[in-house]
Amino acid sequence: MSDSIGTYLIQRLLAHGIQHVFGVPGDFVLGFNKLLEESPIQFINTCDEQGAGFAADAYARLQGLGCVCVTYSVGGLKIANTTAQAFAEKSPVVVISGAPGTTECIKNPLLHHKVRNFDTQFKIFQELTVAATVLDNPRTAFAEIDRVLAAANRYKRPVYIELPRDMVNKPGNPDLQTSSPPEISDPDTLAEALKEAVGLINAAQQPVILADVEIHRFGLQDALLQLTETTNIPVAETILGKSVLNEPHPNHVGLYAGALGSEFARQYVESSDCLILLGVFLTDLNLGLFTAHLDPKRSIYVTSEKTSIQLHSYDQIRLQDFVQGLIQAKIQRRELNLPPSSHRPLKFEVVPNQAVTIARLFEQLNSFLSDDTIVIADVGDALFGGLGMFIHGRTRFLSPAYYASLGFAVPASLGAQLAEPSARPLVLVGDGAFQMTGMELSAIARYGLNPIIVVLNNQGYGTERPMLDGKFNDVLNWQYSRIPEILGTGCGFEIHTEDELAAALSASRSHLESFCILDVHLEKHDMSAALNRLTQALGERVVTTS
Amino acid sequence: MSDSIGTYLIQRLLAHGIQHVFGVPGDFVLGFNKLLEESPIQFINTCDEQGAGFAADAYARLQGLGCVCVTYSVGGLKIANTTAQAFAEKSPVVVISGAPGTTECIKNPLLHHKVRNFDTQFKIFQELTVAATVLDNPRTAFAEIDRVLAAANRYKRPVYIELPRDMVNKPGNPDLQTSSPPEISDPDTLAEALKEAVGLINAAQQPVILADVEIHRFGLQDALLQLTETTNIPVAETILGKSVLNEPHPNHVGLYAGALGSEFARQYVESSDCLILLGVFLTDLNLGLFTAHLDPKRSIYVTSEKTSIQLHSYDQIRLQDFVQGLIQAKIQRRELNLPPSSHRPLKFEVVPNQAVTIARLFEQLNSFLSDDTIVIADVGDALFGGLGMFIHGRTRFLSPAYYASLGFAVPASLGAQLAEPSARPLVLVGDGAFQMTGMELSAIARYGLNPIIVVLNNQGYGTERPMLDGKFNDVLNWQYSRIPEILGTGCGFEIHTEDELAAALSASRSHLESFCILDVHLEKHDMSAALNRLTQALGERVVTTS
Repeated sequence: MSDSIGTYLIQRLLAHGIQHVFGVPGDFVLGFNKLLEESPIQFINTCDEQGAGFAADAYARLQGLGCVCVTYSVGGLKIANTTAQAFAEKSPVVVISGAPGTTECIKNPLLHHKVRNFDTQFKIFQELTVAATVLDNPRTAFAEIDRVLAAANRYKRPVYIELPRDMVNKPGNPDLQTSSPPEISDPDTLAEALKEAVGLINAAQQPVILADVEIHRFGLQDALLQLTETTNIPVAETILGKSVLNEPHPNHVGLYAGALGSEFARQYVESSDCLILLGVFLTDLNLGLFTAHLDPKRSIYVTSEKTSIQLHSYDQIRLQDFVQGLIQAKIQRRELNLPPSSHRPLKFEVVPNQAVTIARLFEQLNSFLSDDTIVIADVGDALFGGLGMFIHGRTRFLSPAYYASLGFAVPASLGAQLAEPSARPLVLVGDGAFQMTGMELSAIARYGLNPIIVVLNNQGYGTERPMLDGKFNDVLNWQYSRIPEILGTGCGFEIHTEDELAAALSASRSHLESFCILDVHLEKHDMSAALNRLTQALGERVVTTS
Repeated sequence: MSDSIGTYLIQRLLAHGIQHVFGVPGDFVLGFNKLLEESPIQFINTCDEQGAGFAADAYARLQGLGCVCVTYSVGGLKIANTTAQAFAEKSPVVVISGAPGTTECIKNPLLHHKVRNFDTQFKIFQELTVAATVLDNPRTAFAEIDRVLAAANRYKRPVYIELPRDMVNKPGNPDLQTSSPPEISDPDTLAEALKEAVGLINAAQQPVILADVEIHRFGLQDALLQLTETTNIPVAETILGKSVLNEPHPNHVGLYAGALGSEFARQYVESSDCLILLGVFLTDLNLGLFTAHLDPKRSIYVTSEKTSIQLHSYDQIRLQDFVQGLIQAKIQRRELNLPPSSHRPLKFEVVPNQAVTIARLFEQLNSFLSDDTIVIADVGDALFGGLGMFIHGRTRFLSPAYYASLGFAVPASLGAQLAEPSARPLVLVGDGAFQMTGMELSAIARYGLNPIIVVLNNQGYGTERPMLDGKFNDVLNWQYSRIPEILGTGCGFEIHTEDELAAALSASRSHLESFCILDVHLEKHDMSAALNRLTQALGERVVTTS
């Protein structure tokens, strides 16, 4: 007796390291939920599907693959946005959706949850994923599962699997399993590109590596470390690449993001005569809204999708092979001559009774970080202020820094801590973003996790006020610190002053048994220096009429 | 100087009766938000875009058109699901999304919020709406606005308008305005169909009207009333049609929904020799999961999309013209011989200290309804229990009874009360659905509305337990009655017994200044008789393997 389609799917998820699947049940997916419950995978209920989508995204960023499992339409279409974010920021999330049984769809009846046609959801997810399938054929189902999971791994982007409910327990066909040959670099092209790159690097006065998101996603942090330690070529990082090298490392130049990042890193990178861009996304936010200036004529640019040196390009080179090739090539070792990192935290001196400001909030948080902290920043000043933080470990800073969907951080901490139980998330989230998804603290409470949530409470969408303000930027004030009373667990703190913050952080550090939530009251128009620069650049566009 | 595109759009919304627009701002839509703020339209901030989508849907069901306004991708894709519901249940919602400026998109840069291409969102909304446009051309923008709003009115389904931020203040071209000729019925076809229908009706022993969702949507409640009062042909209603005729009316047969509805209505309708189906959706839930039995050979079936009598069909007949034609035709007036409605509430006798059960909860709520109550039921036993309620006014029962997306009811009450300020919503919502969107009470608090929220707290997804149970059907218990402490307003009640419920309902009736929330504790496996019948039918499908 062959495995059922549902059982095979679970086996393949396990083989890819998935231990947790996030979602909300529904009648079209209940059968698969039951199979999951009986498997070694733990199903994690969130309050809303959106929370499950964000949690799976964070899980994928840390574990290498994430999975969200929902019902048809009323579940699936709720995670269109979170899947779009995973696509945009290269996070390999497997979306599994239940669906009506194949025999129920004959004659196209008006079954509940149907939108226009039975394939409406499938068509939408084709736009949002790199591979999509409907497992409506037992003969091909196993091969289809293999195909889409391989695509998730290859492109580090989301994939979609629709599972009609009458197929869950149908036996599949193991003979048709395809093991597609592993994608490899063309050896001659790789050799030629490496030879050219090594020549340029060795001839350069001040080469520098700019490392970005794909180093995280392809698990190349060790290789990057080896490359910089072997050659002493310093490493700068982009916003999406933040913490790709642990920041205390002496070869760490700092954050390069045009006007948004470190001024030292900006000068260092932009004056380099040989820029080695590894896995870089050339996005507006990553580049400080195009305030960055990178000269392609001095660049070696390698990603999973494209390789170019100066103004010409090479096909069929894998990022990981190129990085390995650089490590093994005869690149001359240099003397390192970098000053200590500019944002290494000084001891923070609390001024009692002094109101918390954004600038000093991040200094104070910076001195609180420890080796097991994973910082998760929502969009807004949570992110821009967070850019200046000095992250200890590698891949210990998560933020939707390109797609920029508000409401990521709280549910992301659920996914992050399940992916890395030894880490403790420090969540930075504005009040506007918290009100979108913050009640996923319910799921965090249910599964006994203990992130520390810092709500930047400035009574509205602070990022937008300096662009164009109005009542539409206000949000109602909540008593965030009392949410533990609703959920029956958790520890809340209301904070106006630096000494109150110090006491709350200290209490949170020793309170391990549940989440802590810190309601940090900030002045309505206060903002970080980085946000100030950003909104000046953005504001000009918002009000433009041409 | 011609109007700007943004100004013209606002004028057209006002002309269609829109007084409130729901949404969340974002940088790509801020300019239009500012224009809205300066207009007579009130912009209503919700916590999350999902809440805005549901609120606009409810507003559309009552007012005739609703509008949700969001930013690009991170806003728009969050309302894919609510727009799908509006499509599936024929609710005319105008989706307005900000977008990058047309000049910003040249060369396809990686601007924040972009998914795959700049038109990804547009392509997705083409699947979810009956008309979609990108206002990227000042010459055609006014005509495009007219075209999509006309489609919303014609089909009573959602439409999509994407507004690049550099177009908001651009002057449009008033000369190209198209006033498409109003769609009319073909006079000869209409006359022939009416003649045939009237002949069948007059020859019948027991004709009955089955009225559904399109009577609500096309504003034909008055016409239906006139038709039944002129002819004394009784009216049964479907689930989506519930309250299309005010239920105390002597011509009201009751709810017809196969095994889900009233047994009297079922016998009456199924033994009729002439069924007049007006604006009916033949969906699974509407028909009690296909436990209904309607014989097309005895049917006159008219909707906005299709007209058929017995087994033949007519083209180009408008629903409203057909109903008017029936009113004006010489249909013989009959003697009415109906018993009083079976679910007219008796005086409810509270048993002190008796735990609340689902069955008696709905009896107790039924006796609480008054002429200004609008019942809004979420999916699950909130809906199935609610079916037995005796609604006073017309179009005073809202529920996503076909698409069945959990989490509709609380944000819907925001939209409903703004559309009809004289009505007071009574929201029936399960604990699972409440945890999805219930914190939109924040928006309800902000705008000073006063719905009464009844949380059916049975510790999980009660609809799913009888189909297939597992830990995935559990939800964490919240202290729902203490949410007012988080929001700084509102009145909470914790309820275990009938006398506690009576006291809370009485207090809620006189507490007009803010919302009330009643946490009604129910036994985990308790359920309404209707849900019991439904889940038995559904359960067989969930576990089927073939």
